[in-house]
Amino acid sequence: MIEQTTIVALSTPPGSGALGVIRLSGSKAIAIVDCIFKGKKLAKQTSHTIYYGKIVDAETIIDEVVVALFKNPKSFTGEDVIEISCHGSAYVLQKVIELCLNQGATLAEPGEFTMRAFLNGKMDLTEAEAVADLIASDTQNAHQMAMHQMRGGFSNDIKGLRKRLIKFASLIELELDFGEEDVEFADRTELKNLLLEIQTTISQLLQSFQLGNVFKNGVNTVIAGRPNAGKSTLLNTLLQEERAIVSNIPGTTRDSIEAIININGIKFRLIDTAGIREAKDTIEKIGIQRTFEAIEKASILIYVYDYETFALNDLEKDIKELQHSKAQIFCVANKLDLTDGVNDKLIAALEERLPNVTHLGISALKNENIDRLKKTISKDIASLQKGDTIVSNIRHFQHLKKANEYLELALQNLEQGISGDLIALDIRATLQELGSIIGEVSTDDLLESIFRDFCIGK
Amino acid sequence: MIEQTTIVALSTPPGSGALGVIRLSGSKAIAIVDCIFKGKKLAKQTSHTIYYGKIVDAETIIDEVVVALFKNPKSFTGEDVIEISCHGSAYVLQKVIELCLNQGATLAEPGEFTMRAFLNGKMDLTEAEAVADLIASDTQNAHQMAMHQMRGGFSNDIKGLRKRLIKFASLIELELDFGEEDVEFADRTELKNLLLEIQTTISQLLQSFQLGNVFKNGVNTVIAGRPNAGKSTLLNTLLQEERAIVSNIPGTTRDSIEAIININGIKFRLIDTAGIREAKDTIEKIGIQRTFEAIEKASILIYVYDYETFALNDLEKDIKELQHSKAQIFCVANKLDLTDGVNDKLIAALEERLPNVTHLGISALKNENIDRLKKTISKDIASLQKGDTIVSNIRHFQHLKKANEYLELALQNLEQGISGDLIALDIRATLQELGSIIGEVSTDDLLESIFRDFCIGK
Repeated sequence: MIEQTTIVALSTPPGSGALGVIRLSGSKAIAIVDCIFKGKKLAKQTSHTIYYGKIVDAETIIDEVVVALFKNPKSFTGEDVIEISCHGSAYVLQKVIELCLNQGATLAEPGEFTMRAFLNGKMDLTEAEAVADLIASDTQNAHQMAMHQMRGGFSNDIKGLRKRLIKFASLIELELDFGEEDVEFADRTELKNLLLEIQTTISQLLQSFQLGNVFKNGVNTVIAGRPNAGKSTLLNTLLQEERAIVSNIPGTTRDSIEAIININGIKFRLIDTAGIREAKDTIEKIGIQRTFEAIEKASILIYVYDYETFALNDLEKDIKELQHSKAQIFCVANKLDLTDGVNDKLIAALEERLPNVTHLGISALKNENIDRLKKTISKDIASLQKGDTIVSNIRHFQHLKKANEYLELALQNLEQGISGDLIALDIRATLQELGSIIGEVSTDDLLESIFRDFCIGK
Repeated sequence: MIEQTTIVALSTPPGSGALGVIRLSGSKAIAIVDCIFKGKKLAKQTSHTIYYGKIVDAETIIDEVVVALFKNPKSFTGEDVIEISCHGSAYVLQKVIELCLNQGATLAEPGEFTMRAFLNGKMDLTEAEAVADLIASDTQNAHQMAMHQMRGGFSNDIKGLRKRLIKFASLIELELDFGEEDVEFADRTELKNLLLEIQTTISQLLQSFQLGNVFKNGVNTVIAGRPNAGKSTLLNTLLQEERAIVSNIPGTTRDSIEAIININGIKFRLIDTAGIREAKDTIEKIGIQRTFEAIEKASILIYVYDYETFALNDLEKDIKELQHSKAQIFCVANKLDLTDGVNDKLIAALEERLPNVTHLGISALKNENIDRLKKTISKDIASLQKGDTIVSNIRHFQHLKKANEYLELALQNLEQGISGDLIALDIRATLQELGSIIGEVSTDDLLESIFRDFCIGK
């Protein structure tokens, strides 16, 4: 274990609550808390036990608390860890942290607890990174992906790849030892097949990144249409249904509202836009320009129109314009409640006139057919299967991409009958890239950049 | 112990964080968690121990957690309590609570954990109420007041009063038993002195309420003045200094900004107001009317004027108008930085011309004399002395007031030589009022109204 300072931080979210937990980790954690805790002497207690007592500042009682004791190495960080459960008052929590600092603790950097867990061999780098993803997870798929990674699923895949590569490298490098004798221990076809096999696995992982990104960050979904088509009503209806797990994000642009909803375990990032129309003035022009910018970035586009009042020409013109984007388009006839029900013939006629677009009818106001809309837009996004490894981290993706490039080089050299020592270089580079993913090869800079995005206290 | 359902709730503030703690309490808490926790069987473990394991939903791992076990009666509520420390992900926390509910737990009402602690005799009513105050405390004085109450300081005072009253009642009631014989066991002068003594204590407690209210809710402080006198700059300067413990509260009126700052351990509720001036239109009129409404409610009024450009007539007119309010007025010359320093003669002249008002000079922009201003406005508000009992709860205040009224009646009756049985009635009513404070006399309605203002999970 590397000797470190003892760190302290609030590990629960800020704000008033019944409880707030302050965590300390380091060789002096127990001694520091023993100085401010009036209760049993923690240094004399066994690991994984809890003590009730008071946190005191000289003679003043700051709080009645419960202290949990984890002795090294049986703790999250691998060091001595103390967790103090205080009453969740801003004043109390600040004061208790202050007292710990006065006794020689230092304030933890974001992610520093997890970084120590990594440095002390409690987890590898992908597992540590998964902790942050797990905390941020807000849908079933994002959660399952992070949990799989935290439990070492992804690491095992990478380790498996490295093992097979090392087998390959050992065969090649054996030849190098006998270089003068021009022997070939390894059958070239067998070698090639091994590399191709590894390449297939890496390709699959690379391909999974898009899905991983969707699970983690959400599907960009734009709701567009002419003014008064019912775009905002649709957004509200979608949000109300999922009220419990909805969080509003202040729009990045003045004229669009962004919200996150969870449909069938998949996160959708919904953007309500200014209506599409002929701009009358500059401000409106800016709003509409922003609408088109949002559409550019969208994967899904829900085009809403008023079933009662729409003009076919306008609809056709809008859809054709929108089809310049790469988004999948859903053409939604709204305000069905005002009619005697959806006119199937009309929808069929539209399907013929505007193909390559999914048509359906809803009433956003009366919540009619909203479930069908949700099923339709989430249908094409695969759900995560248990045990699937999905790459969701851009750092992993980039190392995998480089590993793949080196592998490609090795294959080309193998194909062209280039000598084993050059191939061995490519293989070593591939191993290096894969090793960086799980942290078998790492630098301080890398670690800092990974952990600084964590929340403090983790 | 009263048989209750087993309750569950998130006890840490909502939001993403390193940790989120879910708390269960009740006779089935251990059995419920044993169903969803893959680790050691908790039912077989001793109290005050911690276990690492997984929370599972059938085969799916929801989280890796640490579970703390508190067996009755050695827990916060007096029942079996389990605290599950999860990763602070919205999805994980929701899911774990869901699993507990599926196993038969019910969602806790606000304050239900503390209410159970009260019902199981772990604390009396004032101590329970102090838990909520402690959580809400954000200054040293508010914290110290709540901690004193939570540690039973206030209860002991009330219990002391009751004891003395019961002694009095027993003497009076002894006479009643011998009513026919017309004896007087108790010396009337001695009885009167005892009641007067009790009344003095109650009066002191009643008087402390205003201070308690200030400590708990803050001193209403209005910053007023003509436009461009530097009111907002002063507010910002005061806020910046205290940035770490400042929280902004959205103004209740459109035209005033409200913020809380902590000066010398006392909470000040600062209200920046629209400038005082001749209103040009209706909207301005409303703004100015609101300014005067805020001034009506203020305890402290900081009147800011521009030291360089002010007109003595205007200043005089404003101050005289403001003196109709009950607030203490501080007349502050701003923008000293623009002059060669404060003109002491001018301030002295103003002091003569406008007495009953405190005068001082500052520069809000350059942070000059701001410390002196803070010292001056907090000077007259006493700081809490250790061990002082301060009434801060309106419910306690009202019971004390009624107790005082009954006591007054008893004294009058005693004075007029009214017979002991009538005096005994007044004494019993006084005892009832005091008993209600600590919960020796309580109804379901009362309990519900007390605990519903708690946060959930406490």
